[in-house]
Amino acid sequence: MRLISFEADGREQPGAVVTGPDGTDRVVALGDLSLAQILEHGPRIAAAAGSADITALPTLTEVKLAPPVRPGKILCLGYNYAGHTQEQAPPFPNVFIKTPNTICGPGDAVVMPPSCTDVDYEGEIAVVIGTRASRVPQAGAMAHVAGYTLFNDVSDRGWQHRTDQWALGKSADGFGPLGPWIVTTDEVTGLGGRTVEVERNGVVTVSASTDAMVYDVAFLVHYLSQIITLEPGDIISTGTPGRFPQAQAAHTPLTPGDTVTIRVTGLGELTTPFVSMEENR
Amino acid sequence: MRLISFEADGREQPGAVVTGPDGTDRVVALGDLSLAQILEHGPRIAAAAGSADITALPTLTEVKLAPPVRPGKILCLGYNYAGHTQEQAPPFPNVFIKTPNTICGPGDAVVMPPSCTDVDYEGEIAVVIGTRASRVPQAGAMAHVAGYTLFNDVSDRGWQHRTDQWALGKSADGFGPLGPWIVTTDEVTGLGGRTVEVERNGVVTVSASTDAMVYDVAFLVHYLSQIITLEPGDIISTGTPGRFPQAQAAHTPLTPGDTVTIRVTGLGELTTPFVSMEENR
Repeated sequence: MRLISFEADGREQPGAVVTGPDGTDRVVALGDLSLAQILEHGPRIAAAAGSADITALPTLTEVKLAPPVRPGKILCLGYNYAGHTQEQAPPFPNVFIKTPNTICGPGDAVVMPPSCTDVDYEGEIAVVIGTRASRVPQAGAMAHVAGYTLFNDVSDRGWQHRTDQWALGKSADGFGPLGPWIVTTDEVTGLGGRTVEVERNGVVTVSASTDAMVYDVAFLVHYLSQIITLEPGDIISTGTPGRFPQAQAAHTPLTPGDTVTIRVTGLGELTTPFVSMEENR
Repeated sequence: MRLISFEADGREQPGAVVTGPDGTDRVVALGDLSLAQILEHGPRIAAAAGSADITALPTLTEVKLAPPVRPGKILCLGYNYAGHTQEQAPPFPNVFIKTPNTICGPGDAVVMPPSCTDVDYEGEIAVVIGTRASRVPQAGAMAHVAGYTLFNDVSDRGWQHRTDQWALGKSADGFGPLGPWIVTTDEVTGLGGRTVEVERNGVVTVSASTDAMVYDVAFLVHYLSQIITLEPGDIISTGTPGRFPQAQAAHTPLTPGDTVTIRVTGLGELTTPFVSMEENR
């Protein structure tokens, strides 16, 4: 099942995406259900809607997508792909936090503040927590995962490296495009064997297999839950693979007009334009 | 004005503290007002209640205090007192983030998870944001501050230093006692000339003047707001002063049964017991 959030009646509402016999994706509104309720009842509701007159539903392209979830906590991994920057994998997951003001929706532009002059993208898979997890064993950890979505861990390298803690370089308003949807674990049970691909202005700069991920999802949920109670809707972003060496050598900070697309096998794609504050007025 | 949150009818409700002619602190319930509304109308409501039959109000000791605010963002400073650990002040504020699961109320115990074996306290003054602040100049920054409260930036040094990012050592459940109240800026206009004192089991281990603060409140609000929109209820914790050298030399991790009190001139005091998970059952 693919879960979205879309704007209707001036607020963000949950929905599921169903594909009709003509191949068109359409949106089933899920009303005022919580994420937990959706995970329990969503497939049945979506199936019922899909078996009725599907052409009466709005198409996916007709709705304005919002972030598929508004996470209470945004926990992110650094150096979680073999070969990314560090020679050796870190001895423990290197976790940092982004604040909730970073979250924006699929299709939203990232507005770069004047003081951010070294903005970079990081294409990642985000794990969405489905049920509360506190000190869970690794063996049972996957039961707490609702599904997966895509996340661009936008970072300003200038702010990030002013001090030893990265927090501010990671937490500017809107520096966290999320979406387009959550693919739930009934459809995608694990992350193995997928390709994470990132394009900047149509040029592929990152293409890596999730098999190079250092700490996997079950371990991360287990590990984090030893001290932090994970709640439904929280996200764990699993880190970015490194750029191709030539793309890394040629890298320049993002500038207004740039567009970044993240694409992962089976999870969809997330495209984000970058604009200046003046352009956004 | 002193603003609290207290538990009543199964939820946390805002209140103001008024002192009667007999010197007893009593609680005026502020109903369903938002923090912004309270800041606008609170003094008038509290004054009206204080001029009526004050003995009809519950005393402060009769209510169960909750955290005076539930911050959307918890931004914390490292090394923000001259003489704390580093020889020189950092060239920029060293900011890290704690997640919202850390917040607990005045009087609540901190329950130490089994994997946290090097738990430490940090006595700090937290700035509470009153009105939205985005890219505000330093000169106008104080107008966005609602007031001040006390914060214990509880940290597990083991988790903190497993990797270069401190996030996990700072974000265990309940590792952020906050309170007892917000002293609003009509009563405390600035932080200068105050003494931050911390006691562990009745022994003073920290006593420092806020005049040793490296980055002051107006600068911090200005600086952070360049990239993060600060919202009402967000907190900025201004960092801990260092321990006395002899207290630092004799320091051992907190153990179950320890009690830490933070006391700041004009802001009150915050006492937190530390317990094991077994004791908390």
